[in-house]
Amino acid sequence: MGGTWGEYLRLSIFGESHGKCVGIVINGLGAGLELDLDFIDKELQRRRPGRVATYSSAREEKDRFEILSGYFNNRTTGAPLTCVIWNQDPKSEDYDEIKGIIRPGHADYTARKKYSGFNDYRGGGHFSGRLTAPLVLAGAIAKQVLRLREVTIGSHILSIGDIKGKGFDPVKIEPKALQSLTEQDFPTLDPELAVLMKEKLARVRKEKDSVGGVVETAIVGLPAGLGSPFFDSLESKMAHLLFSIPAVKGVEFGAGFAITEMLGSEANDEFTLHEGRVVTVTNHSGGIQGGITNGMPVLFRTAFKPTPSIGKTQKTVDLEKMEELEITIKGRHDVCIVPRAVPVVEAVAAITILDLMLEKDGNGWIK
Amino acid sequence: MGGTWGEYLRLSIFGESHGKCVGIVINGLGAGLELDLDFIDKELQRRRPGRVATYSSAREEKDRFEILSGYFNNRTTGAPLTCVIWNQDPKSEDYDEIKGIIRPGHADYTARKKYSGFNDYRGGGHFSGRLTAPLVLAGAIAKQVLRLREVTIGSHILSIGDIKGKGFDPVKIEPKALQSLTEQDFPTLDPELAVLMKEKLARVRKEKDSVGGVVETAIVGLPAGLGSPFFDSLESKMAHLLFSIPAVKGVEFGAGFAITEMLGSEANDEFTLHEGRVVTVTNHSGGIQGGITNGMPVLFRTAFKPTPSIGKTQKTVDLEKMEELEITIKGRHDVCIVPRAVPVVEAVAAITILDLMLEKDGNGWIK
Amino acid sequence: MGGTWGEYLRLSIFGESHGKCVGIVINGLGAGLELDLDFIDKELQRRRPGRVATYSSAREEKDRFEILSGYFNNRTTGAPLTCVIWNQDPKSEDYDEIKGIIRPGHADYTARKKYSGFNDYRGGGHFSGRLTAPLVLAGAIAKQVLRLREVTIGSHILSIGDIKGKGFDPVKIEPKALQSLTEQDFPTLDPELAVLMKEKLARVRKEKDSVGGVVETAIVGLPAGLGSPFFDSLESKMAHLLFSIPAVKGVEFGAGFAITEMLGSEANDEFTLHEGRVVTVTNHSGGIQGGITNGMPVLFRTAFKPTPSIGKTQKTVDLEKMEELEITIKGRHDVCIVPRAVPVVEAVAAITILDLMLEKDGNGWIK
Amino acid sequence: MGGTWGEYLRLSIFGESHGKCVGIVINGLGAGLELDLDFIDKELQRRRPGRVATYSSAREEKDRFEILSGYFNNRTTGAPLTCVIWNQDPKSEDYDEIKGIIRPGHADYTARKKYSGFNDYRGGGHFSGRLTAPLVLAGAIAKQVLRLREVTIGSHILSIGDIKGKGFDPVKIEPKALQSLTEQDFPTLDPELAVLMKEKLARVRKEKDSVGGVVETAIVGLPAGLGSPFFDSLESKMAHLLFSIPAVKGVEFGAGFAITEMLGSEANDEFTLHEGRVVTVTNHSGGIQGGITNGMPVLFRTAFKPTPSIGKTQKTVDLEKMEELEITIKGRHDVCIVPRAVPVVEAVAAITILDLMLEKDGNGWIK
Repeated sequence: MGGTWGEYLRLSIFGESHGKCVGIVINGLGAGLELDLDFIDKELQRRRPGRVATYSSAREEKDRFEILSGYFNNRTTGAPLTCVIWNQDPKSEDYDEIKGIIRPGHADYTARKKYSGFNDYRGGGHFSGRLTAPLVLAGAIAKQVLRLREVTIGSHILSIGDIKGKGFDPVKIEPKALQSLTEQDFPTLDPELAVLMKEKLARVRKEKDSVGGVVETAIVGLPAGLGSPFFDSLESKMAHLLFSIPAVKGVEFGAGFAITEMLGSEANDEFTLHEGRVVTVTNHSGGIQGGITNGMPVLFRTAFKPTPSIGKTQKTVDLEKMEELEITIKGRHDVCIVPRAVPVVEAVAAITILDLMLEKDGNGWIK
Repeated sequence: MGGTWGEYLRLSIFGESHGKCVGIVINGLGAGLELDLDFIDKELQRRRPGRVATYSSAREEKDRFEILSGYFNNRTTGAPLTCVIWNQDPKSEDYDEIKGIIRPGHADYTARKKYSGFNDYRGGGHFSGRLTAPLVLAGAIAKQVLRLREVTIGSHILSIGDIKGKGFDPVKIEPKALQSLTEQDFPTLDPELAVLMKEKLARVRKEKDSVGGVVETAIVGLPAGLGSPFFDSLESKMAHLLFSIPAVKGVEFGAGFAITEMLGSEANDEFTLHEGRVVTVTNHSGGIQGGITNGMPVLFRTAFKPTPSIGKTQKTVDLEKMEELEITIKGRHDVCIVPRAVPVVEAVAAITILDLMLEKDGNGWIK
Repeated sequence: MGGTWGEYLRLSIFGESHGKCVGIVINGLGAGLELDLDFIDKELQRRRPGRVATYSSAREEKDRFEILSGYFNNRTTGAPLTCVIWNQDPKSEDYDEIKGIIRPGHADYTARKKYSGFNDYRGGGHFSGRLTAPLVLAGAIAKQVLRLREVTIGSHILSIGDIKGKGFDPVKIEPKALQSLTEQDFPTLDPELAVLMKEKLARVRKEKDSVGGVVETAIVGLPAGLGSPFFDSLESKMAHLLFSIPAVKGVEFGAGFAITEMLGSEANDEFTLHEGRVVTVTNHSGGIQGGITNGMPVLFRTAFKPTPSIGKTQKTVDLEKMEELEITIKGRHDVCIVPRAVPVVEAVAAITILDLMLEKDGNGWIK
Repeated sequence: MGGTWGEYLRLSIFGESHGKCVGIVINGLGAGLELDLDFIDKELQRRRPGRVATYSSAREEKDRFEILSGYFNNRTTGAPLTCVIWNQDPKSEDYDEIKGIIRPGHADYTARKKYSGFNDYRGGGHFSGRLTAPLVLAGAIAKQVLRLREVTIGSHILSIGDIKGKGFDPVKIEPKALQSLTEQDFPTLDPELAVLMKEKLARVRKEKDSVGGVVETAIVGLPAGLGSPFFDSLESKMAHLLFSIPAVKGVEFGAGFAITEMLGSEANDEFTLHEGRVVTVTNHSGGIQGGITNGMPVLFRTAFKPTPSIGKTQKTVDLEKMEELEITIKGRHDVCIVPRAVPVVEAVAAITILDLMLEKDGNGWIK
């Protein structure tokens, strides 16, 4: 029904874009964890709009979070950990006039159908990308916990529109390199690519249009044995969360769709021994077989559609009057969601991996 | 932890490739449904190996199912519906000799790590593609129920290796055309493409190799309003199940990865009125916005890797002796899993849609 | 793991006695419900301490609630409904000195063992009876919804210590009479009994002691057919919630423990026809057979232990020093929790029934 | 919705009294456990009807179980463990004639209402006490696992009708004494009580009537720290399962309903140190505070109503003809379900405790 996720790490999300707050209740973390509040804040800032004028909405969100429960003497207590991010006063009037007018590419129409018109339509309400803020918050906590196990997660922007770079070397990903990607404002494997991508963004912005892109993510330091066959494969659980991020239209693991063009003799990752450990020579499977990690880097790519809010005039329908009309969406919007989506994808990855680790080992080790 | 799936339609799967049976317990169907046993059988035959000598394993599986519970006087009773498909006597000896030898591309290694070596390794055990038979069975029941609501699901083989066809016209898919696809042994939108694909399969078979491909699926007749935002979007729930199907490495909805190269003005599906109904002019979103159906065809593509069992010699490791070696997998295996995967993908789609319909309307209408 | 409950109506509870707030996230209610805020407030006041000087703690809690999400234009939106009750400034110092000293009858020791000493021990933290406030809040909403179906829930105090009254007439309970019970501060079926009980409470208070009691609850207006056999019988689901209320040590349905002394010929509720409807002549089963309602009043009794906080000196252990000692708990505490527990029991009953109704009919009817 | 239970140990139950089988799928046990098949058989025999002519139905059930999946080389594999108990050929004709006639005290009416008349009514179908056989089977496995942690569960018959014995000494229960109770056909703490109870049963049988009773259960060897506050207290989870056992009408922990008559100074279990360990002087709480074990014996009592099937003539209704009539139930039935319920209650206790242990420690220790 929505609202909750997870078996061993359980999330309950809530909030609206133009309501009082967005927030999340987290169960399963255990007691005694001192949260790295600066790190949470840093991760929230990575997702924040308005960071880089070129590609992002100018709306200023402070994204200050507050812990409402489950935290005492600077440690988790084991009770439900609730965090909220209070909304600043948004100008809701901007949205009132388009109440009956459904924006193409948005959830205005489907939300209205599902909720019989009672949904909070202001700024997308509960469907807003703003709901990814509590996900990033929960992900920051999950990342902090995964650090205890020396698991590192990092991503880069693989493509913006038709500007595409190369992916990770699937068998050779250094934790430090991954880590340093997370510290970049606009992470790409090749610095020149970033220049091209930003030029693209500037051009698209000028045209009052928007563009999509692909984020590639790697997770290193994982033990073999995380995940399950039917129905809780690592891919299943992670894709479940990834496809809840607004604007995601595709997810692939390892070589993904490209593996369909390989022969089996190319696609199969042969096993070999390296310093007494079983490793694979290639990593087309993205570190997962039968839904379970094999100890190689886990690799996946997430496709984001162009931001649906654009300045160009579009045809649509006014549901109140049941008549066709044209709209031009005012205000400043992200020309591309991808840079801000990077920490969201990583958050979701961290949450999934932590859930699988809690399944395997319980939460006694989290301190 | 695996084993179960679903909120309103709940599945509990079990069984092994070379054990006594594979089976499934289904909860949530309600009482009074007369099962179309012939249709279940027909669907199981679509998945059965050995149908077409060119591309499929020669192992003969009869796949006769038996209902163990929840069915009385030819109607569901409302109690858990349990179905099993008994295994024929497989020659397990074939597998004993390779117990410690992990096959590249298979779950042999990861299963061993997760289950400390106690997993049933014969024929892949619980990781076998054979476990998709009970999924097809549950899917056949779900399809039968969806027929009551005039929902039709159909798929075609979009590509085999580098042989690619065109996809569905996203805004114009006739239920009858979809239906007729399900009656084809090797469904393609273009009959000539099937010829090329089969030639490809014959070539690959000769080389003792294997190949992957992509299945494209459409669902028509859906009402607007099925699905949820965080965390149970239609995409989330369906991808969860799809990524539990062995060999799936990628899933995309609507325009999928290609949408990342569009501009927002291209990608957004503009709304218009058609005979008093709201429809979209294009359907790049695959009939889903904000995780919820908009009444247009739901469209998705599933990427399957090449069959990992190949006749070519591969390098691997013997875990018992911890030494490298070469293996050649004997026996006849599917040169390509894709044609047999078609009914599995459709089953998973039907199960997901039924779960969402049960959420919306309860199960009182199922008769 | 705790923190969440429910299948069709899903609760996620959080908060601490001396933290910032207690609260709850509610999923499953659907969209378009105008909440009766006055009624919520009234129900919260029923649970509030300090109502009646004789038997209740003098701590003044205002118990003002705030809706954080899921509510727009005075209607539920279908998104998660989050409500919090902010805590007043409690004097936490009172508790600091007894940090290592575990109070008999409280969860101090077990919480410490489970959470390795990181639990918020102030005022019982997440184990506090204060957590029943968000339950009452959710229950008030559930009651409001059940009113749409003409379902009425009411309770009376069956016993306080050894002062016992008679129970409901199991086959003849008027909705109005039930309703009027909910409007009483100290609901008993016999007004004279209330006098005796209050005298008892005064005596016990004078002795700096506490006492327990039994609440009897009836639900009328239910249709036949709510509930399930294994494992979600009405009794199972309701007892699950009831046994989460602090201080509950026993739950019985219908004739309960007394039915064990009957013969089958006495205990069986014979069926008869009344105005064309099937009814039972007696109602020893409490309106439930095979875990499912039969349309007769659902009846159950809940046993509450005496308030563990008492002014009398008690022996215990200081876990910091691992030595025995004596404690006298200061402050004013409820001499008996039972009167304040009445709305909590009713809330839990309403929540359970609504969950079962949502299973049967979905939430489309909630407006 | 029913059918499944559990968070860390997950059960999926199925089957009917007069169908092909009853069975259960168990997830969460982990891999590498060699099942004690003789012990499972022994436990099933404890539940079997016809053991003792005096009080039990003469129907001969062999209750031979078969493992269908998840077991290989005499060890659990980690995949879903499925077990079935095949039904012998029952004479279903006995039931056909009473199809429309609802038996007082049975679920005939409520099942019919819930499942619109499509339920398998033969012998109670899925509502039959026969469904407790797979519970006992799962419980036998759970008991075997708990033995690894030196946890012992045992029960005695506290009362049959008005013949009542004394309960366990709550602070002093020897594992050996508990264990020996499980080896008795008719376990009572006092052998003379058993004589009186059996005389009672003989008298009731002669009158073609039935009688109920109370089972008291103890669990010793538990660590402190198992369970949770809201909503998964040990009591919540155990009561959930207990109230799914047919005929259970009441459950109480520790002093239970009697604690309501105590003063707080009596009811509170004072803490003391014993050989360096924290223990309680009394154990009115039944070893549980705040829903979490404190290391003392866990104690609870379960109330069973008289067997509803009696030879005496009863009034009821024929739903087909909607007219009143009298019925006399033929066949030989248990005069009292209590002796056969003892292993069922223990099974449910073992399952609950194992689920809580898996939450705390994962399943890596099960070998």
